[in-house]
This record gives sequence, C-alpha cells and structure tokens, in this order.
Amino acid sequence: MNSNSHAAFAPSGVITLTSDFGLTDPFVGVMKGQVLRRFADARIVDLTHAVSVHRPAEAGFWLGRSYAHFPTGTVHVAVVDPGVGSSRRIGVVEGDGHVFLAPDNGLLAGVLQRLATAPVVRHLDPALLASLGLDRPSHTFHGRDIFAPLAADLAAGRLPPERLGAPGATLQPDELAAPRLDADGASGAVVTIDHFGNLLTNLDAGLLTAFDRPLVQVAGRELPLLRTYSDAVAGEYLALINSFGVVEVARSGGNAAAGLGVGPGAPVLVRPRPA
Amino acid sequence: MNSNSHAAFAPSGVITLTSDFGLTDPFVGVMKGQVLRRFADARIVDLTHAVSVHRPAEAGFWLGRSYAHFPTGTVHVAVVDPGVGSSRRIGVVEGDGHVFLAPDNGLLAGVLQRLATAPVVRHLDPALLASLGLDRPSHTFHGRDIFAPLAADLAAGRLPPERLGAPGATLQPDELAAPRLDADGASGAVVTIDHFGNLLTNLDAGLLTAFDRPLVQVAGRELPLLRTYSDAVAGEYLALINSFGVVEVARSGGNAAAGLGVGPGAPVLVRPRPA
Amino acid sequence: MNSNSHAAFAPSGVITLTSDFGLTDPFVGVMKGQVLRRFADARIVDLTHAVSVHRPAEAGFWLGRSYAHFPTGTVHVAVVDPGVGSSRRIGVVEGDGHVFLAPDNGLLAGVLQRLATAPVVRHLDPALLASLGLDRPSHTFHGRDIFAPLAADLAAGRLPPERLGAPGATLQPDELAAPRLDADGASGAVVTIDHFGNLLTNLDAGLLTAFDRPLVQVAGRELPLLRTYSDAVAGEYLALINSFGVVEVARSGGNAAAGLGVGPGAPVLVRPRPA
Repeated sequence: MNSNSHAAFAPSGVITLTSDFGLTDPFVGVMKGQVLRRFADARIVDLTHAVSVHRPAEAGFWLGRSYAHFPTGTVHVAVVDPGVGSSRRIGVVEGDGHVFLAPDNGLLAGVLQRLATAPVVRHLDPALLASLGLDRPSHTFHGRDIFAPLAADLAAGRLPPERLGAPGATLQPDELAAPRLDADGASGAVVTIDHFGNLLTNLDAGLLTAFDRPLVQVAGRELPLLRTYSDAVAGEYLALINSFGVVEVARSGGNAAAGLGVGPGAPVLVRPRPA
Repeated sequence: MNSNSHAAFAPSGVITLTSDFGLTDPFVGVMKGQVLRRFADARIVDLTHAVSVHRPAEAGFWLGRSYAHFPTGTVHVAVVDPGVGSSRRIGVVEGDGHVFLAPDNGLLAGVLQRLATAPVVRHLDPALLASLGLDRPSHTFHGRDIFAPLAADLAAGRLPPERLGAPGATLQPDELAAPRLDADGASGAVVTIDHFGNLLTNLDAGLLTAFDRPLVQVAGRELPLLRTYSDAVAGEYLALINSFGVVEVARSGGNAAAGLGVGPGAPVLVRPRPA
Repeated sequence: MNSNSHAAFAPSGVITLTSDFGLTDPFVGVMKGQVLRRFADARIVDLTHAVSVHRPAEAGFWLGRSYAHFPTGTVHVAVVDPGVGSSRRIGVVEGDGHVFLAPDNGLLAGVLQRLATAPVVRHLDPALLASLGLDRPSHTFHGRDIFAPLAADLAAGRLPPERLGAPGATLQPDELAAPRLDADGASGAVVTIDHFGNLLTNLDAGLLTAFDRPLVQVAGRELPLLRTYSDAVAGEYLALINSFGVVEVARSGGNAAAGLGVGPGAPVLVRPRPA
C-alpha cells in the first residue's frame, strides 16, 4: 500500500484532543494555545482527557469508536504517553479521510481496527521536526511541544500527511485480548466504565449477528440483551448494544459497576439463548 | 398563542450544551463533532455536564438562570434523558429570542418559569427527522444522534423553529415543589450545591421584596441576608441573593454544605425580622 | 515607566480563562456567554478552573508558566476572588504583548515574575465601567459581570488597555515565600500537585545552573535530577526540570504525592552533589 492510492487529505480545520491529562492543570489549555499560535482558525474539540492514567488502549478504544462522528478531514491527537522523552516513536495513521497522531505505544490499535478503508500508517520522521521549528521540545510534554504544533500544521493544510514519514509502518499492538468467538458464544472483557456506571466491553455488535436472542453473562449473572435502558424495570440489570456499537451492561436507573462490583478487565460472555 | 405573533428566530451561531454526561467519556465530544459536521462555523459552549445523573430539574434550574447571559439567537440543548429510546417526546421552547431543546421530562419547566416573553412551545414532530436524515438514531444516545444535528441546523439558520412542530404544546412539569409565600414568610428548598459548597435555593429574589431585613432559616440556624461573602466574618454562615437571582446560603471563606450537613431538598424559610 | 514606551496591544482574538470555579456549575459557561455577547468571534480557551478554592497564588503560578504558549495579543482572565464585592481592586498587567486581568489579591504576582519585558501595571479605573455599561454588576460574580465583558472588549480591539487605568500601579504580593539560594543550595516549596501526582515546586530551573549534578531533598529522601520520567526504574522517585521550567518531583509510572505523603507547602531543597 502506498499513499498514492489515496485521495489527498482535505483538512476540515477541526482538531480533536484525547489524553490522560485531566482538566485540573493547564496541560490541555497550553496545547490549545500552541495550536492557535500556528493556526488561528482551528476549531478544537476535547474528546476526553479522563483516560485512565497511562492506559493507551482505553484512549484508542474511545477514539476508534468516536472519530466517525467528526467531519471528514479532522486531525485527531491522542496523548497517553508514559514513555515521553524516551526512544518511543510517534505513530501517524491516515484513514477514512481522517488523520490520527499518537505515541506508538498501542494507542492507535483501537483506531486501526475500526477504519473502514485501508489506512496509510507512518512513523513520524524525527528529522521533520527541525524544519518545523520543533526540534527543541521538552523531555516531558510532547503533547504541547510536538503533537499540538503538528496537528495545527496538518489542520491548516500546510503540512500534508505525506511529509510526516514513509508509509508502510507497523505500529505497536495494544494489550487488550481480542474477543474470542466459538461454539459457546463470544467472550470478551470490560474495557471501561462510563460516567453512569455502565460497563463497556470489547464485544462488537457484529460478533453477535449469529445469535438468536442472546444472553450476556457477567459477574455471575445472566442478563437479557434489550434495546434501551428503560426496557428494563428500574433497578434491574440489562445488556444492550450501545450507541458506540459494543455490548454494554447497565442497570436501569442505576449504576451497574457499583452494583455488580466489577471493573475493567472483568470477563463477559455472550451466548445464544438455549432453545 | 401562535408563532406568527413572534419575530422570526435569528440565530447567533452559538449553541450551548447542558447534560448529566460528565466529562470523563467522549459523550460531549462526539455531540460537538456531530454539530460541526453539519455547521462548521458553530460556536459551542458547555454550560455544565455535571448535572446530577437523571435529575432533569437541576438542569432546568441552571439553564433557566443562565440563558440570558448568552447572545440572543442562541440554541440551548439540554440532555438529561433517563427515558431515551422510550416514547418520551422532545420539547422545543422558543422565547426571549432563544431556542431550547430537551427531552420532555420536566427539564424545560425551569426555563419556562424564567422567560420574560410568552414562549412558543412545541413537541418535536418525529416525522421531521427522516427529512433531515436523522431517522435511524441509536436507542441510547439522542444527544448525539438527534439533539446535536437539530441544534446545528437551527443555529445555521437552515431549519426555522416553526418546522419543528405545531405550537401550543404543553410540556411535563418538573418535580420541584414551588416555593410558598404566606404570612410567616417564603418557604422553599435547596435545589443544588455549587462547587464552593454554597446552597442554592428555589427562592427567587422577587419573593422577598415585601420583607424588611429578612432572616433565613436553614438547618436549625437563622442567618442574616447580607450583600456578599466578605460581609460576614470568615467562618460565619450568611445568606445572600446570589448572582443568579436566588437566595443562597454560604459560609464566608468556607464550605456551607459541608459545615451544615445539608443537601438538595433541605427546607429553607425566609421570614421578616421581628420588630 | 509609561505606556508610551510600549507598542500598542495588538489583540489576537484569543481569551484564556483561569479560575477556582470548577466545571460542575455553569459559572464558566456564562462567562463565555458574556464574552460572545460582546465579541462574537472570540476564541476562548480554558486554562484551568480547578485552582484550589480561594488560592490566588496557585492561579498566578500556572498563568505565569503558561501564557507564553498562547499567541501574542491574547487576553488572560484569572478569577480567584474571595474578596468579590468588597473594596478589593482589579489589576491589569500588560507585558510581552499579552494582557492579564485579575483581582488584585496576589494572583498576578506569579505573572509579573515571569514577564520577559517590563510590564505596564494598572488598577482598573472603576469609573470606566459605567461607560461600558458594566456599572450594575452582581456583588458575587465579577467574573461574569466585569471580567468577561472587559476581556471581550479588549480582545475585540475596541478597548485599548490604556483606557483601563493609569500606569505605574503596584499590585499586591502573593503569599508564597520566594526560594532562597545560599551556600547549601536552593530551598523552596511545593506549589501544587498535578493530575499525575507530581509535585511542582517554586524552584525555577535558572536557580540550578550553578549546581553540578544536583540532588533534590524532599520528604526525607534525596533524589537524583534526571531528564524524564522513564529515566528512572518504574516505581522509583526522581526529580526533573519539568516542561514549565521548575523542579518537579515524580515517581516513574506512579503517583509521587500519594507515595511520599506530601502536599503544597512541603519544603524542597536542591543542593550540589558532594564531590
């Protein structure tokens, strides 16, 4: 694959930011400042900055499930970067008309799984940074000193993704086990807990198409797969295919994670209902 | 009342977002993505996403007390939506030159109470969604799949509010008891606790105009109504009319909610000072 | 010094907001509404709203260490304002091509220390507010009623900073003790803890230039000054010069504040390594 087989990236001017920086310090704010210094018309959207600290796969899960809700031509920056300042490389993915920038530590695996079109994958060429005036970054905050300026230049249309590095790179995998599909059903795990206490799993809706009226097993319970929260009686647990396309375990009018006492990594099995 | 008695809605391009989604997941981010896909020049402002989960009245309280600080022509979207995917309808209020969209579950009651001009009230006509390409929403996230696109089209000026439904609808009330005014004084309740631990009540400043030097009773204490926090000695409790126009109980240099041990729903009485 | 020695302020249209308001209430949202009412094209960036309640020096520390990452011509508003509604004045600092607005309660000391060029310092002339239509503010929320409108007018270029007050004012100091440099080394203190549990100190990198391979003493430990987090073994404590130019104490792959049990105010000493 090479980039010539792709239409040129047509920037929308939108940049999304994802990180584990939280919102208590000015880390996200100064990234936006650096974007605006180079591209005054950028429209910057926070995807989330509450990724679990040093958990790249969680960021990749959300980014892979979210990017398609943004305009084609969006630049997505995701920084969960425990190896900042080390020899870890920077990954660049171009696909579905979007560009993604992140440390090459597994974060982008969740994006690569979700792209509908064959992506172009690059490692950032460190030699490029000098020509962009970015060759003296801090050792601890590349989000501000490298990722934000690169995103600005990409979104402004003055830096074509082709210049970032040679195509054909292979990025690090993430540490999430892939779901398994066998005669018993589909087995996966909880990836993250949302604000409402819902358990989001790595079980994609597409895995379940073969199952008639499936049952979802989690935390020693077996739950029906319903359509929406209010299809269960208040207080009862249920499963559903959520709006991000994965199996979710919820409690109608309540908090499933608190009630079930389970968290990320907990096993989840979906099986066909016995006849 | 009908919409012909009103000037046409003149959009400012500003959209506010209010919800109970929190900021830990990308829920708010993808709503913004959906807005920008349809209206690239939207200016989107978060009002708050920390409404207590599944408490529409709290969202309505804040929105009703906040909207007038935005430009005329603003579209306000508020999504606290435990009934998402059920048969609950969507309410649309046009008043004071602003448009408000929310699930019809009591949320908009707090807005209707505050409008200075007679509003036009509609239920969203579900048949409209198909013509806008929104007829296949998820069952669990109408904020992203219906509210955000509608807000974008309204704010862009390509969807006049008149098209959203027939005027003259009646929306659900909220569950907040209205304050009572009698010979003893004005009795109400704490609606919410702010970031500083101040207790905000449903007692509007207008209720107190008849009272000479009123006293505020809460949690077994009787507090003077002062002008600002620093009018009390540090550590002392006080009441004041806050910047949103309601009676507030505070502790100078401290946290009143923690100190008094009360929360939302606690009764508050304002009475005239004995002669 | 007078303002004639300075180039006129050339607004970028960018406004940053810093406060102790949190993000749970609509306080920040309505400030943005007030900005947009007066200047529709403002680009508003949140620096942080999680400053410790009523701790102006923390806001000043972050603002002084962050402003240079924004475009020249940016207006920075910082509101940590326990004395709102009292006789406290409003400080205005113009320097390095930026303008800073804050209550005159020590907040701006951290900015004044960091400016590379001699600033122009003013107190806001209260008489100006009437001419701007701002003479009836609430007694408790000047962020919304005074600071936001002033910032909008400054950023829009219709209010030159010269009009805000007479130059040559002296602002309140903050309560942070200045670091001391003597034969034993440089002694300072922890100013704030970041989202990752890193301890940020008031010891500027510039203080350490005389020290060969310095050691950092904190919480009864003596730590090496390394280049980045991953230069220490996972779980070990280290010190480094962080991306904001101060000595920081961290734990590789962990949370230093939790592990060491120290917080803001804890003493930190940097000394040369014995020969």
